[in-house]
Amino acid sequence: MIYEPIFLDVNSDLPMYMQLYDSIKERICSGCPAVGEKMPSIRRISEELGVSRTTIEQAYQQLCVEGYLVSKPQSGYFVEAAVIEKNALPSDAIPDDEPEPSVRYDFGSRYVDSRSSDLDLWRKYVRAALSREDIVTSYGHYQGEPELRRQLAHFGSLLRGVNATPDRIVIGAGVQPLLSLICGLLGERAGRVGIEYPCFPHAERVFRDFRLNITALGHDKFGITPEELYESKADVLYLNPSNTESMGRPMPVSRRAELLEWAERTDGLIIEDDYNGALRFRSHPVPSMQGMSDGNNVIYLGSFSKLLMPSVRISYMVLTPELAELYRSRGASYNQTSSKTEQLALAEYIRDGHIEKRLRRLRKIYSEKSERLVSLLNEYFGSIAQIRLAETALCAELILKSTKSPQELAETALAGGVRVIPADTGDSTVKLRLSFAGIQSEEMPEGVRLLHKLISPYCR
Amino acid sequence: MIYEPIFLDVNSDLPMYMQLYDSIKERICSGCPAVGEKMPSIRRISEELGVSRTTIEQAYQQLCVEGYLVSKPQSGYFVEAAVIEKNALPSDAIPDDEPEPSVRYDFGSRYVDSRSSDLDLWRKYVRAALSREDIVTSYGHYQGEPELRRQLAHFGSLLRGVNATPDRIVIGAGVQPLLSLICGLLGERAGRVGIEYPCFPHAERVFRDFRLNITALGHDKFGITPEELYESKADVLYLNPSNTESMGRPMPVSRRAELLEWAERTDGLIIEDDYNGALRFRSHPVPSMQGMSDGNNVIYLGSFSKLLMPSVRISYMVLTPELAELYRSRGASYNQTSSKTEQLALAEYIRDGHIEKRLRRLRKIYSEKSERLVSLLNEYFGSIAQIRLAETALCAELILKSTKSPQELAETALAGGVRVIPADTGDSTVKLRLSFAGIQSEEMPEGVRLLHKLISPYCR
Repeated sequence: MIYEPIFLDVNSDLPMYMQLYDSIKERICSGCPAVGEKMPSIRRISEELGVSRTTIEQAYQQLCVEGYLVSKPQSGYFVEAAVIEKNALPSDAIPDDEPEPSVRYDFGSRYVDSRSSDLDLWRKYVRAALSREDIVTSYGHYQGEPELRRQLAHFGSLLRGVNATPDRIVIGAGVQPLLSLICGLLGERAGRVGIEYPCFPHAERVFRDFRLNITALGHDKFGITPEELYESKADVLYLNPSNTESMGRPMPVSRRAELLEWAERTDGLIIEDDYNGALRFRSHPVPSMQGMSDGNNVIYLGSFSKLLMPSVRISYMVLTPELAELYRSRGASYNQTSSKTEQLALAEYIRDGHIEKRLRRLRKIYSEKSERLVSLLNEYFGSIAQIRLAETALCAELILKSTKSPQELAETALAGGVRVIPADTGDSTVKLRLSFAGIQSEEMPEGVRLLHKLISPYCR
Repeated sequence: MIYEPIFLDVNSDLPMYMQLYDSIKERICSGCPAVGEKMPSIRRISEELGVSRTTIEQAYQQLCVEGYLVSKPQSGYFVEAAVIEKNALPSDAIPDDEPEPSVRYDFGSRYVDSRSSDLDLWRKYVRAALSREDIVTSYGHYQGEPELRRQLAHFGSLLRGVNATPDRIVIGAGVQPLLSLICGLLGERAGRVGIEYPCFPHAERVFRDFRLNITALGHDKFGITPEELYESKADVLYLNPSNTESMGRPMPVSRRAELLEWAERTDGLIIEDDYNGALRFRSHPVPSMQGMSDGNNVIYLGSFSKLLMPSVRISYMVLTPELAELYRSRGASYNQTSSKTEQLALAEYIRDGHIEKRLRRLRKIYSEKSERLVSLLNEYFGSIAQIRLAETALCAELILKSTKSPQELAETALAGGVRVIPADTGDSTVKLRLSFAGIQSEEMPEGVRLLHKLISPYCR
C-alpha cells in the first residue's frame, strides 16, 4: 500500500471509504494480508493514496466492526479473520497447497540423514561467505564463481577422474538449468536424443520442453546396447552410467567404451549425468566416462544435493572444448542461477577438504544403513519379493507381483504413514524403492514392519 | 585421490613411481591441486591406490626435487609451484578467465550501492533461515517455498497491483529459468514470439535457445504499436512495460490497454517482465498490466536483484490460471532452482516489512544520485550529447555522435578506468548508459570528468 494499487474512483456512487473497505476486505479474504499481519498505518495510507485520514479511519473502522481487523492500542491495526464468503472469491483464489499426509516412516528420498549432515560446519561456511561484503552486493560470474570452478576442476579430477579445466566448467542451480543450457547450445544439432528407459524424469522433462525428438533405448544387463544406439540414429545420448535407472548399478567399463566409440564414430554427443557417482560404499566407484575419453564428445554433469545438503542448489557441468567456446561467446547473455553466497561457501568447504571427509563419513553411514535395510526387507519380504540394493541411488528396491500398480501401492503405504517411491519396471512386476538416506536407522525396523502390514495383502 | 582416478599400468615400461609422478605433475601444471594446497598423505594414497608407500614416497620425493612439491615437517606435502611447460599442456588446459581491467569509476550496473544495502539485516535473516535444521536438510518445494509465495502474493498485490494467489506463483533463480519454464509450458502455442526491439538480451537468449520464431516489433513514442502487433501474427508478446529498453520510461496506460485488448481478441499471451517496476523515485510507479487485466492472458515476472542484493537469485512469476494448472500437473518433474535458505530469509524479510522500508530508502538515495549524475553529465556533455534519465533502469543515458561504435567508446573508457554500458540506438547515434546504482555519490564528479576526457576526442 505504498503506492496506488488501490484504485479509488472519485466519480463512483460508492463513498471513498466504502471503495477502500471493499478493496481491503477482498484482499484479506484472498489471504493477503494474512491473519495476524499488521496493516499499514492510517497516516501512511493517507499519504500514499492522497486520501484524508478520516476516510481511511472509516474504512478500517468498518472492517473492525465486521471482524476483519482488530485495533490494538499503541500498536495499530491487525488482520483478525479472513472469512471466505462462498462464491465471493474469484475461482483462482483457491487455498494453497494441500497438506501432505502425515508420514511416520519416510523412505522417500527428499531428505538426508540430519545426523550425517555436518550442518553446523556448513553454516559456518555460509556465514563466512556472507561476511564478504563485496560478494553479496554484486552479481556473480555468469559461468559460476571462479573460486568454485577451480575447486570443482580439482575435485572432479580427484574423485571422478573427470578431465576439466575451470574455463570449461559451468555451474547452475541443479541439473535442469544446465540441461536447458546444453539444449540451447546444441540447437539443431540435438536432432534426436536417445535416453535410457526409464529415464530420470527431470531430464526427460527438459528434452520434452525443448520439443526434441526423443528415442527411448532398450538395454541388456550391461545397459544400453551399442546396436540400439546405432540403429536409433540419435545425435545425443543422455545417460547415467553410475546409476542406471533400470539396473540400479553402474554400467561396466567395457560397455562404456563401446558407447564412447559410438560417439566418436558418429560425431555423437554423450551427456553423462553422474548423479551420486562418487557416493559408493560397497565398492570403489567407476571413474567417469568423460575421463575415459578425450572429452570432445562427452559432457559431464555432477551434483551436490546428496553430497552436501539437498537444499543447496549447486550442480556443475564440464562442456566439450567446442561447446565451451560457444558458451563463452554467448556468456554475457546467460545469468548464473546458483546462489553466489552458497557457491563461495562450497568453494571454501571443498578447499578445506571437507567434501572428502564427508564422503568417507557418508560411505560409512550408508554402508551400515543399507545393510540394515536390506536385511530387514529380506526378513519381511524375502518370500514374496526380490530385493536389491541400488547403491548410488541410496535405496533398496522391492520387486514384487501385486494386484495394484506401483503408484497405488505407494499410496496405500503413504495413507498408512510410510512413504516409499513407486517405479516402473517395464514388465508385469511392481517396483518400490526405499531410500535409506533420510530415515534414521532405528526407525527402520518399525517402518519395514508397518510397510509389510500395509501392502502385503495386495502382493501375490 | 580417494579413489582410483589415477590409472597405473603394471605392464608399462615406466616404473610405477614414475607413472604416479607423471600423473601428479600433469595435474599440478593444469592448476589442480593449486599452489599452496595440501597433498593427500602417503598412507592414504597408498591405501586408495593399493600401491606400496615406498612407491608414493618416491614419486613425491621426485616432485619435491623438481620443486613441484614441498615437504613440511609434521604437516605433509604441499604444492609449491605449477611450472607450466610450453607445449606440455593439453590445449584445453588454458588458464582461467582473463583478469578484468582495473576500474576506478564503475558506472556499470553490476553492483548496488553497498551503503544502501542493509547487508547486516539481510545476513540476520539468512542466519535465521540457516538455523532451521529441517529446512536445510531437505529439498525445497518445486514451485518455491509456500511461505515465500504467500508473501509475494501479498507484496505483488500491494506494490504492483498484481492479482496473484500463492498457487499461481512460481519462484525461480532469475528470469531465465522462469522463461524456460514458460517456453516449455507453452510448447507449440509459442509459435511466434513478438519482442520489443531492442529486447532485454537475456530474454531473447531463452527464446532463441528454444528455437522459437522471433519477430522484433517496432515502436512509436508510446512503445510497441497495436498495428505492428496484429500484423506480426505473434502468439506471444514479451515486453517490459515499466522500463522499455528503447524509451527508458514506462509505457503509458492507454497503450497498455491496447496491447491487453490484442491479447484478449487473439487469445494471445503477454509476458510482462516487470524488472525494477517498483523502483521509481521521481513519480509513482504505473501498476502492472497483469493487474489491469483479468490475468487470463498475462504472465507477470518480477525480480529482486536490485531491490535486495544482486547476489540473491530470486525471481517469481504469476502464471495464468490455465498455465498454472498445467504447471502443477507437471510439477513433480521440475526442480526448484532458487536457494531454499535465501527464499525463507526473503519471506521473513518481506513479512517484517523490510522490503517496503527498503523501497522508501532506495527511492531517496536514487533520487539524489540520479539528480547529481544528470547534472554532472549536463555540465560536461551538455554541448555534445543528449542526456536523459532512464529511471527504472537506474541509469542516465548519453546519446551522442561519435566516430566510434558504442562498444568501442565503452572500451576506450574502460581502458582509462571508467566503466559505462554501451547500447544500440538503431540509428546513427551512439548511446552510453551510466548506472548510478553502484557508484558512490562522491566519486561521480571525478568519474564523469575522466569519462569526458577519455571519450570526447571521439565525439562530434
